[in-house]
Order: sequence, then C-alpha cells, then structure tokens
Amino acid sequence: MIFTSKLIEDAVEAFCKLPGIGKKTALRMVLHLLKEQPEVTSMFTERIQRMRDDIRFCKECNNIADTDICSICENPSRSKELICVVENFRDLITIENTGQFSGVYHILGGLLSPLEGIGPDQLYISQLVERVKQHQPKEIIMALSPTIEGDTTVYYIGKQLKGTNVLISGIARGIAFGGELEYTDEITLGKAIAKRLPVDVLQH
Amino acid sequence: MIFTSKLIEDAVEAFCKLPGIGKKTALRMVLHLLKEQPEVTSMFTERIQRMRDDIRFCKECNNIADTDICSICENPSRSKELICVVENFRDLITIENTGQFSGVYHILGGLLSPLEGIGPDQLYISQLVERVKQHQPKEIIMALSPTIEGDTTVYYIGKQLKGTNVLISGIARGIAFGGELEYTDEITLGKAIAKRLPVDVLQH
Repeated sequence: MIFTSKLIEDAVEAFCKLPGIGKKTALRMVLHLLKEQPEVTSMFTERIQRMRDDIRFCKECNNIADTDICSICENPSRSKELICVVENFRDLITIENTGQFSGVYHILGGLLSPLEGIGPDQLYISQLVERVKQHQPKEIIMALSPTIEGDTTVYYIGKQLKGTNVLISGIARGIAFGGELEYTDEITLGKAIAKRLPVDVLQH
Repeated sequence: MIFTSKLIEDAVEAFCKLPGIGKKTALRMVLHLLKEQPEVTSMFTERIQRMRDDIRFCKECNNIADTDICSICENPSRSKELICVVENFRDLITIENTGQFSGVYHILGGLLSPLEGIGPDQLYISQLVERVKQHQPKEIIMALSPTIEGDTTVYYIGKQLKGTNVLISGIARGIAFGGELEYTDEITLGKAIAKRLPVDVLQH
C-alpha cells in the first residue's frame, strides 16, 4: 500500500506493530485521530506513554501495579491465607471479574515448557516458594490452564513446596483440556474456583 | 471489566476510543506494549503524536500532506491536465494503489447530502471550481461512490463548471450501486478509471 505522506505511513506502521492490526485497520485509526480534535490524540499518546513509564510490578505478587504493592495485596479485606497462582495478568483479571475470589494472587509470568526452553528460573516460582515459607498461607490455588504445561508447572511447584503445611488445590475441571483460561465464561470459571479440589484428586 | 491498576485502565480506555476496538482487544494491545521494551512504546506514541502535530492539508488539492503542497501535486511527472475528484483520503489512496492514474487529485472532504445537512459550503467545491478556472485542466474525473449523494455531487459540480471548457467524466460503472469505493478490488477499480465516460453518457 502506497501512502502519499511519510507522517501517515509512519503512524500506520506504528499501529501495525500492535497484535491483530493490519494496514487497513491501522489507516482507519490514523484517519480517525486526524478527524478528531488534536487533544484527542494528545490524551491518547499521553495515557499510553504514562502507562508504560509508570507501571511497576507488585513486590508481593508480581501483579501489574501503580505503586510498589498492588491494589489487591494492599487491600486489608483480601485474605492473605489464600493465594491464587495464575500464569499472567490477563488470567488474574479474568478471575477477578468472576467476583468469586477474595484472597490474593501470585503471577508466575508463564508456564514451564521444556520444549520452548522455559524453565523455573524464567518464572516467579522461587518467589512463590519464598512467600509461602515466610507468610505461611493456609492454601494455594493453582489456577493454571489445564494443558500439559499447566500440569507440569503445578507438579513442579508441588514438589518445591514439599515440607510446608500449605494445602495445594487446583480449580475444578469443567474447562476442556487444552482450553484457554482467558476465554472461559465467568459462570464456569467462578464455579471452578468455588469447587476447587486438592491436586492429588485432580490429577488422578 | 475491573482492572487492578488505574494506569492500565486509562490506557485500555484510550485504545477503546479508537474505531472497532473493544476492551479485550485494547487490553491485549496494552499488555503487548508492556511486554516489549520501553522504546517500542516511545516510538509508537511519538509517531502518532508527530503525525497529528505536523500533518497539513495540501493547498492545491486538500490531500493530507507533510508540507504545504502534497507529494502528488509536487511531482512534475503527474499531469496537471487531469484532475481526479474524490470524496476523501482513503479513496485517493485506493485509486493511487491501482497504479492506473497519472494525473492529480482534488479531495472534496465529503459528498453533498441534504438529509445529513451537508451543503456545498462544507465541502471543497468552490476551491475545485476556482482551480479549474485558474489552471484550465483538460478533464476532471468524478471518482465518487455511485450513490445518490455521489450522483448529486457530480450534478452540482457539473452545474458550477458550466461555461468552462473542461470535460467532466465519471469512472466507468462496474461498481454496484450503493457500493463503497474503498472496498472495491484494485483490478475492477483500475479498469473503471481506464474506461471512464462523459457524465451525460453515464447518467442516462
């Protein structure tokens, strides 16, 4: 696609780098911004830039946060006795939106995958083990996608936590094997959290 | 949807204001930028902001331009004898990409629509008439969408240009009535430009 303006071309290219955006869609966005008042673009770029500049990761749970400790860990009405272990921020948000969970979270930042070369050192597993040993929660819920990588991660973390008194549970099956946690409907996911079972029961 | 970070929430909202972007898609974009190096976001916001700040409109043809005169009007190999009249920048780009047109353009900025309250004063019609009178091109091609608004605009411009010697042609039919010019395939559109006919022949 030929453009008659380098400024437009650069802006279209910038949008195209975002996931799922092709040239036609990118051009529509650029022309939309051009049609609106200049303040609309300033507010857009400022918000994106401020988000990238100021975002931090919670020192407790690795959640995306505006301050050193995220709003969930900081909230006194959330139970520190119950830690829900998730793969990433999107899964945390999905669970949070079921309204079924009142504990705190721990974000691993991925799942163990020997095939893709993702080992324990690339994930926030040692921090989880450290956290369990230090704060001694009653239970950790493994809310990982029911895939081979998810199950491997649950198994590995279980081994690392041997010797502690924490109960390790997994969210109840009801999600198809190989399914993506993010796209599960809220009712199913809410029930799956409410009906969680010990890992032994789940995997045998 | 609840987010645990105001920074994320603001950035998601900013993306949601763009056409066709919902909350899930916006969140995917925000998380994509968070995953990449900070420079990726800086380059993104800088390009968008620079585009909005520095863009101008060509004094000749009303095209989007980086300078006072757009790259097409400035190009000495483009024939000034032939002016292609289009509704907007997207239609110009679509025609430009057929590679069938070597003249210059004139962007109207819309079509006459009494129902939507769009009259001649809101469009760049008087500038076109002025341009024709001043530069006396041989022909103007009306490359407007074949809708009632398009035909009305062609008719109105034709009346304004009475008394000048310019030939007014329209791109050959081959595009369905009510169709959107932007989504026409390049071969059909290229042929339609090559086989253009005088307005009288087209409309009777």
